[in-house]
Amino acid sequence: MNDFVFCSPTRFVFGRGYIDQTGKELAKAGFGRVLIVFGQGSVVRLGLLARVEESLAAAGVSYVECGGVRPNPEVEWVRSAIETARAENVDGVLAVGGGSAIDAAKATAFGAPYDGDVWDFFVKKQPIGECLPIAVVLTIPAAGSEASSSCVISNDAESRKVGTNGDVFRPKLAIMDPEVTFTLPAYQTAAGVTDMIAHICERYFSGEGPVPVTDNLACAIVRALMEVAPRVMEDPEDYDARANIMWAGMLAHNDLCGCGRSAVPTARAGGWESHAIEHELSAHYPQVAHGAGLAVILPAWMRYVWRANPEPFLAFAADVFGIEPVDEDLAPRDEAVADAVEAAIDELQAFFVSMGMPKSLGEFGVSPDCIDSLLETLEKSKGAEFGGFRKLTMEDARAIYASAF
Amino acid sequence: MNDFVFCSPTRFVFGRGYIDQTGKELAKAGFGRVLIVFGQGSVVRLGLLARVEESLAAAGVSYVECGGVRPNPEVEWVRSAIETARAENVDGVLAVGGGSAIDAAKATAFGAPYDGDVWDFFVKKQPIGECLPIAVVLTIPAAGSEASSSCVISNDAESRKVGTNGDVFRPKLAIMDPEVTFTLPAYQTAAGVTDMIAHICERYFSGEGPVPVTDNLACAIVRALMEVAPRVMEDPEDYDARANIMWAGMLAHNDLCGCGRSAVPTARAGGWESHAIEHELSAHYPQVAHGAGLAVILPAWMRYVWRANPEPFLAFAADVFGIEPVDEDLAPRDEAVADAVEAAIDELQAFFVSMGMPKSLGEFGVSPDCIDSLLETLEKSKGAEFGGFRKLTMEDARAIYASAF
Repeated sequence: MNDFVFCSPTRFVFGRGYIDQTGKELAKAGFGRVLIVFGQGSVVRLGLLARVEESLAAAGVSYVECGGVRPNPEVEWVRSAIETARAENVDGVLAVGGGSAIDAAKATAFGAPYDGDVWDFFVKKQPIGECLPIAVVLTIPAAGSEASSSCVISNDAESRKVGTNGDVFRPKLAIMDPEVTFTLPAYQTAAGVTDMIAHICERYFSGEGPVPVTDNLACAIVRALMEVAPRVMEDPEDYDARANIMWAGMLAHNDLCGCGRSAVPTARAGGWESHAIEHELSAHYPQVAHGAGLAVILPAWMRYVWRANPEPFLAFAADVFGIEPVDEDLAPRDEAVADAVEAAIDELQAFFVSMGMPKSLGEFGVSPDCIDSLLETLEKSKGAEFGGFRKLTMEDARAIYASAF
Repeated sequence: MNDFVFCSPTRFVFGRGYIDQTGKELAKAGFGRVLIVFGQGSVVRLGLLARVEESLAAAGVSYVECGGVRPNPEVEWVRSAIETARAENVDGVLAVGGGSAIDAAKATAFGAPYDGDVWDFFVKKQPIGECLPIAVVLTIPAAGSEASSSCVISNDAESRKVGTNGDVFRPKLAIMDPEVTFTLPAYQTAAGVTDMIAHICERYFSGEGPVPVTDNLACAIVRALMEVAPRVMEDPEDYDARANIMWAGMLAHNDLCGCGRSAVPTARAGGWESHAIEHELSAHYPQVAHGAGLAVILPAWMRYVWRANPEPFLAFAADVFGIEPVDEDLAPRDEAVADAVEAAIDELQAFFVSMGMPKSLGEFGVSPDCIDSLLETLEKSKGAEFGGFRKLTMEDARAIYASAF
């Protein structure tokens, strides 16, 4: 078990109708005037923003609206939100939405107290310093941003999508009301569940370990997701299944599943290879939802790298799918291991597909011709070599993209 | 999935040799002058206190020693520590030890800012209000007090042992250095592991649920403990096994395993029947270590109550032990269920015994004659009826005590 520091200080207020408690909880947490960050209108259409604002008003928390965050939020939007936050003298930022709104809110919150350009934090020109307190009303469980130390922002001018990390911008408060997710379309729900499983797998296959307690937790969450997701596909208003998904999404990415698995003393374990490879896809092609891209890339990455260290793949196969290599008298050990690992990856991919996720990048309407330009920006973001489980060169990344078609 | 509020804000600094980082971490967290609370000398003998004090001095954090906390810490000690904390003008309390030192530190920390008697908080005369910040150097993993919202204090004059709860006294900082637990005797290690499993079971068998994600996490931790504990019994200096136990003890009691399992909107799920029944034993008989008492009481309680709702027991049997009821063509369903549940309880008890825990209360040198006086103080603490999974009267409690001999 490797050394780590873990701190997930968010207060989670979780339950039926709790969106209407937003104002009360914000007031209790010391928020007086907030910038409300939201997306391209679904929280308005569904009446969620109105409920939040009503509860803020009732609790005496004043607010300024700042909507229009797009999927894969863009740094120009953040720059303008920072201007608004300063002009309006807010003392906190409240995201109402999913990962995009929350990440935009985070970047606004740590960008506002900084004199320079917020993009400096993403190109590591400037370490994260001060940050306005952040609260979240989660409406799309997927990214885990409601508790994570991650923030991912795109830069269209540079065709890049870059993440940064800092405990200082973990939200103070997260209002989690599973009922608001009843209207989430099946495709988006499935992409969210895929993202959660990817968050767990990036850590599980970190190349470090085993760490029985952390490993068991990771597999426990994956199994829970595989149990409840089909219930939501069947009945979008299955409260318990929606609630389990919402909570699992937080647990998948608050670093609980990374404790003891990082080679450096942080709880942020993993090489994040699949995320890096997928990020280029959704940066270049807006039609690629992050989770849907992962549904293709994660299994492709697994198939490409598992031979570098079959042990964690065997452990995952056994715990999540009950798949064990057959006895040595039935097949040579190497073959038995390969069969077991490939069978587990097949099962995982079949689960994604069963939720309506694509099996090939071709389904997004892109062709293998795109790979060169993906690699160009990938190399800008990650350098010539990246990854934790197994170092990947750009030629490895090319092979993974190619195998995903 | 029931509504809940969950907040586990402690910063965990976990790893080899990290006890020597105590001062640096305390300074970073804003502690300037602390009351060091510790027990009856083992941290002095082992040189741990000296290492902590050296690191505090190096970081410019001043301190006052306040030792002598006994197992099952007593309210008179707390009253005197509160006087010291006030007289010495400390701005925080640092526990160096296990559950007893930490609980004594917690009671001191919320007692110091209060004008009345600290016992008022335990008899619910006064709600917990202000609290000095608390830090912990954990040397005995067991009680989970390093992150929990619990504090249990004994009152000898009244022959009572009473717990109280409050998020406000969850520690801000926990230094967790598994190497300092190498010298922990096998019996104490085993009692600690038993306590951890009991913390999980009290929540799992709350009478609410199922909650797949929380239930899977609970079983995941129990399985990890059952995997690594025998390694420590074999080799007390097995770092990875010690580290997994230390981390599991925190996870078992920070309320993660209670999320969605409480009938009221808190993460503190469970009826805590086994703890209540055991607490009377260790309050009356100092030779009964809390965990060792639980090794006998928990299985006795399970056997007494499971018929009120076999489902969670069946789920636990399947996930932790791989035990399923046999098919209906082999045995009537009722018999098959009873066999599976009893087999799982047998396995759990056999695991406790395999670590050197007692199987009967007689092994503590007490006789069934004590039951009347145990019931008398139990009723004072819990009232005529208590429990969540199944309401227990004093006659039920009598039967459970009797069956534990």
